[in-house]
Amino acid sequence: MGLVEQFNEYRSKMNDQILASDSLIIKRIFNLDANAYQDGALDVKSKELIGLTCSLVLRCDDCVKYHLGKCKEVGLTSKEVNEAMGIATLIGGTIVIPHLRRAYEFWEELKNV
Amino acid sequence: MGLVEQFNEYRSKMNDQILASDSLIIKRIFNLDANAYQDGALDVKSKELIGLTCSLVLRCDDCVKYHLGKCKEVGLTSKEVNEAMGIATLIGGTIVIPHLRRAYEFWEELKNV
Amino acid sequence: MGLVEQFNEYRSKMNDQILASDSLIIKRIFNLDANAYQDGALDVKSKELIGLTCSLVLRCDDCVKYHLGKCKEVGLTSKEVNEAMGIATLIGGTIVIPHLRRAYEFWEELKNV
Amino acid sequence: MGLVEQFNEYRSKMNDQILASDSLIIKRIFNLDANAYQDGALDVKSKELIGLTCSLVLRCDDCVKYHLGKCKEVGLTSKEVNEAMGIATLIGGTIVIPHLRRAYEFWEELKNV
Amino acid sequence: MGLVEQFNEYRSKMNDQILASDSLIIKRIFNLDANAYQDGALDVKSKELIGLTCSLVLRCDDCVKYHLGKCKEVGLTSKEVNEAMGIATLIGGTIVIPHLRRAYEFWEELKNV
Amino acid sequence: MGLVEQFNEYRSKMNDQILASDSLIIKRIFNLDANAYQDGALDVKSKELIGLTCSLVLRCDDCVKYHLGKCKEVGLTSKEVNEAMGIATLIGGTIVIPHLRRAYEFWEELKNV
Repeated sequence: MGLVEQFNEYRSKMNDQILASDSLIIKRIFNLDANAYQDGALDVKSKELIGLTCSLVLRCDDCVKYHLGKCKEVGLTSKEVNEAMGIATLIGGTIVIPHLRRAYEFWEELKNV
Repeated sequence: MGLVEQFNEYRSKMNDQILASDSLIIKRIFNLDANAYQDGALDVKSKELIGLTCSLVLRCDDCVKYHLGKCKEVGLTSKEVNEAMGIATLIGGTIVIPHLRRAYEFWEELKNV
Repeated sequence: MGLVEQFNEYRSKMNDQILASDSLIIKRIFNLDANAYQDGALDVKSKELIGLTCSLVLRCDDCVKYHLGKCKEVGLTSKEVNEAMGIATLIGGTIVIPHLRRAYEFWEELKNV
Repeated sequence: MGLVEQFNEYRSKMNDQILASDSLIIKRIFNLDANAYQDGALDVKSKELIGLTCSLVLRCDDCVKYHLGKCKEVGLTSKEVNEAMGIATLIGGTIVIPHLRRAYEFWEELKNV
Repeated sequence: MGLVEQFNEYRSKMNDQILASDSLIIKRIFNLDANAYQDGALDVKSKELIGLTCSLVLRCDDCVKYHLGKCKEVGLTSKEVNEAMGIATLIGGTIVIPHLRRAYEFWEELKNV
Repeated sequence: MGLVEQFNEYRSKMNDQILASDSLIIKRIFNLDANAYQDGALDVKSKELIGLTCSLVLRCDDCVKYHLGKCKEVGLTSKEVNEAMGIATLIGGTIVIPHLRRAYEFWEELKNV
């Protein structure tokens, strides 16, 4: 199983389990999260770039993977995604580089999905 | 080997190795750590909830696993643990969610130990 | 004007301004935040200790001040609050100490309000 | 002197002092920083939104102020900026709120500059 | 009163208050902290450079100020301190720059003490 | 394949891929990174200790591994490295300990390379 399938499957399985636990706060945060990236004053591309770069500077690999998947879905190009990740690396420093490696690897695999 | 055994075994092996290296500062931090969660002005349950939620907002999976194990030991229920983790997710943001997934998975496995 | 009044006044003025800006996500986060610390599976004291210590390890002075105010309101003692902050300092390291200084100062002032 | 002037003056004075110290690494980082937000695969608006939100989730007040000033310069509206900051608050959690307060205050003052 | 005096006075006053509160964990952390930077396998200069740069990447202004004071005491030069801070800025990213400004300002004032 | 080979191989493969993507900002950051740890006002040992400890307090396992490899290369002893990591653990708190475990494991393996 590729990186992308593995990521999606685990994410989906655990999200189900978390939502089944009937934790009201968490349910509402998940709900907010689903709505926040919809078209609004900003378009979905700008929002996914925000989601991607914030995830990168906060060094959350799974969040980066999730937003890379969405970036591809909404039609962002490799050039745009790489430029955004370049800015994030500058803001967050060389400490971001190991996460950048995993991001590039995941973005490559997304092309084959 | 399950997640819990794997975690405990590695943790225990490496702690032994660290303590054998004769680093005075680290030894004293380990010692402080062992004492800090004892019954005091606050009871052990309150202290483990603090340990769990601080670990979660700081996004340290291994620390979360360790405190989930202690939470179970001191008799905290799933409902209490989930509520605490809900607050931590609110404080720390959606960036905490991937760690929440692994926390839920580990808590499930703890039930079978 | 004392530290406590100054903090409360600015917080209240800016919260009003933020809520008046009609940002739906932020409104819902504020709303969630107001509900999360209510009595539930965990009592309000446990929840405020979680709020306080998570704020301290994340080194957010204003969040610490806010939760210190709530800790006093719900009847937590200096001994309990200090013990909780001790654990947070151990978890978060000496980097937490400057925030601890400001926390102690604010807690002192809360006694005179 | 208003918040904006105060911020700009101190920033400018200290940048001069830092660059005068002849530290090669820092000089090159400053230079990179000046170039990174230019028009490229992404337009300047998208880049400033990235700069703003990454600064907010990393909770750097001065960085937020700087990018708010640039956001205004490149023509982003209050609605767009607020939506971006809403996403950042969701990603970064309630810990971001005190920084959001200062961001709103600064954005207000920018209108009068 | 200059920046240095102001910093030292507040730090000293609040440390006394914290230690008077009889919190055992905190007392022991303070004690560890006092010992950790003594001459050992590494000399005091190397240790202060570690303290300074770790404080800078963790973006703790007061910790940076404290270690700058110690750096001067143990005889580190501006050139050495600036080079160390350059590396820290590279590791931690442009988000470190506002803290670098305050560090340079404090280092300047230390020359006049 | 051992931990060290695995780390080096993945790092090298992905760095090539990142540099091939022709992202100017990232290229320049990589270039800066290569130069920053050269002999200068501070010697290479001091610089590697800074790289190691900053990586540890920022809790970046891959960065820690990289700098442990360099620490060995430039001739730092176990005693020196352990003392440096002790200070980093004190500064960063018990949250650093899981990363310390992986650091000790990697340092052990480096002896056999």
